[in-house]
Amino acid sequence: MSLTITHIGQLAEGSTLLEDAFLTIDKGRIADYGPMNAAPRGGETLDAEGGMVIPGFCDSHTHIVWAGSRDGEFLDKLSGLSYEEIARRGGGILNSADLLHRTSEDELYAQSMVRVREVMAMGTTTLEIKSGYGLNPEDELKMLRVIDRIRRSVPITVKSTFLGAHAVGRGYTREAYVNEVIRMLPQAAELSDFVDVFCDEGFFTPDETERILSSAARLGLKGKIHANELAESGGVEVGVRCGALSVDHLERSGEAQIAVLKDSGTIPVMLPGSSFFLGIPFAPAKAFVRAGLPLALASDYNPGSSPSGDMRFVMALGCIRMRLTPLEALQAVTVHGARALGLEHETGSIARGKRADLILSQPGWTLTRLPYLYRTPWIRTVFAGGESVA
Amino acid sequence: MSLTITHIGQLAEGSTLLEDAFLTIDKGRIADYGPMNAAPRGGETLDAEGGMVIPGFCDSHTHIVWAGSRDGEFLDKLSGLSYEEIARRGGGILNSADLLHRTSEDELYAQSMVRVREVMAMGTTTLEIKSGYGLNPEDELKMLRVIDRIRRSVPITVKSTFLGAHAVGRGYTREAYVNEVIRMLPQAAELSDFVDVFCDEGFFTPDETERILSSAARLGLKGKIHANELAESGGVEVGVRCGALSVDHLERSGEAQIAVLKDSGTIPVMLPGSSFFLGIPFAPAKAFVRAGLPLALASDYNPGSSPSGDMRFVMALGCIRMRLTPLEALQAVTVHGARALGLEHETGSIARGKRADLILSQPGWTLTRLPYLYRTPWIRTVFAGGESVA
Repeated sequence: MSLTITHIGQLAEGSTLLEDAFLTIDKGRIADYGPMNAAPRGGETLDAEGGMVIPGFCDSHTHIVWAGSRDGEFLDKLSGLSYEEIARRGGGILNSADLLHRTSEDELYAQSMVRVREVMAMGTTTLEIKSGYGLNPEDELKMLRVIDRIRRSVPITVKSTFLGAHAVGRGYTREAYVNEVIRMLPQAAELSDFVDVFCDEGFFTPDETERILSSAARLGLKGKIHANELAESGGVEVGVRCGALSVDHLERSGEAQIAVLKDSGTIPVMLPGSSFFLGIPFAPAKAFVRAGLPLALASDYNPGSSPSGDMRFVMALGCIRMRLTPLEALQAVTVHGARALGLEHETGSIARGKRADLILSQPGWTLTRLPYLYRTPWIRTVFAGGESVA
Repeated sequence: MSLTITHIGQLAEGSTLLEDAFLTIDKGRIADYGPMNAAPRGGETLDAEGGMVIPGFCDSHTHIVWAGSRDGEFLDKLSGLSYEEIARRGGGILNSADLLHRTSEDELYAQSMVRVREVMAMGTTTLEIKSGYGLNPEDELKMLRVIDRIRRSVPITVKSTFLGAHAVGRGYTREAYVNEVIRMLPQAAELSDFVDVFCDEGFFTPDETERILSSAARLGLKGKIHANELAESGGVEVGVRCGALSVDHLERSGEAQIAVLKDSGTIPVMLPGSSFFLGIPFAPAKAFVRAGLPLALASDYNPGSSPSGDMRFVMALGCIRMRLTPLEALQAVTVHGARALGLEHETGSIARGKRADLILSQPGWTLTRLPYLYRTPWIRTVFAGGESVA
């Protein structure tokens, strides 16, 4: 039943890179690892031929369930419209909501699974998925059911986040919609692990965010917050005050937000793919890491601002554009991502007893080459809970 | 002998996108194409199932032949050193030259072919390769022989450029090295198609560039110039004056360079991959296109400033970061790239009689989705001269 990967050139154990190592998978868990000369005899083996083994990617922030395509808006953007302008024209999130409303649940599942299989093949073994393109009770629940169906049909770990407060749904005043979101919470709580609010200029205020998060807390749902993408929104502060698991985006943040997050237990999550795609400033990742915060990077995979779920490219952006070292970037896309989902005891690093969520590279790869040769194919096998998924 | 691709969802013919089309390949050439209802009967067929057919990529500027790896310098860069500082420390181009000097010709060929096969699989069907990591007669000729061996061993079109004047070789004064480059020209001319000079601040002056280009012209070698990457170097002006085929880089350029290039016959080539990787400004592509110039985009694939040869990502950078439309970006990575190599009558677009250098996408792809879903796998088959290479 056990499988030992032998002759691993580099094995990323926390912040140490073991050279010439083995790793044994047993019953879906990491049973053991160490220097090659201590490898067990017998049992099934897989010769890594000097390839690298790193933890599978933990993508803690995605909107991977959507309907149709928004490539038309991409053309609009190339003609110079801003994210806010596209939103004002009825595009953006509301456009996705209209498309989703017209799409059957089966079709939504099928379209989304294409992307889920894509990111699995790219090494994502833990995937958070948000609702938030429904924006009314019926369609939000449709999304949450689709996320739940994905969760049950793939070998990777899927976490579900209720993001009813992604934008004000059509036909509601903002106040009425906040009340509607709060009314949706009990049903949403049956299907989801977390609640999320887009707390930013033009979206929801810190007060509204706090109302939603405290109602959710009474139902056992931990909070996550979209904060400081468009302005210094107060989202970080309200997130920490409410004990949110993570505050995400943070393009407009600095020393003040670092001070608030320090020792808070709330994980900062940055989304360099959306900065890259939108051409907005990158969040100050290096400053957060220098301050000792457990920074996570996630893909933000969504049809409007980040149409890629490739966590290796997210890691490369962490280095190339945010100036993280390869090791800092690796922690950000693995163990800190796991922390942003409350899964740090289950996955996100190579440790005995953790799920065998692993990526085995082709021969010749090192951690530094992963962001350096950022477009060269590198994956040999992806294991999720010990099962080969790509 | 002929092959007809049927049911093509989008076929990029110049600036027109034909829908529901066929294309027939015969004896390595594009024999015919048109609306599906005019497809020929009989013969071998390949059902595109609605996939897209575009010309293969013409990558008109690469340094794909190099020895070893410079990932250590990548780490240096992440600790804050600039390109110029790394060069001053004996890194950069001279570092590559030292590595190349110590590498056998067979090994250099083997290492380089890994990358050539990689870019073929990514859709590059025309590839320019420069020398310039030799920097003395013996090693420059070694590089040119390796490029020639690559040319003879792959089905794609390879063009060879002698870039002896990439930097001043070790042990030479600049003046002595310029004279050495000029002395190398007759032997270089036997193996290469073009000559190139790095005309920029800290490298070679416009006067030196002109001396090299005019000596090369007497041997029948057309010029190409690295210009305006680091400063307004005068490289564009000297290039046009000498009738260079292209002036490449152009990060520091604007209306003055546009005016010089207008109606010159010299093709502007921009290299967004190196801007992305180095974090320097992107060249003003949109302004050049608006001015009606036949702008080409190329990968600059090299170990220091652009360790990727993925022309689909170059095209995506053309849209996402340079704000070109997908069609403008496609022209830049195909037909204008061919012009930058003097191959516009042979390849770079879908036209009867041209080489069948083509990419067939998986079903569901459109030209707009290519840069939009910039990390999603999309290639079904690459044809080079009608031969399936990936």
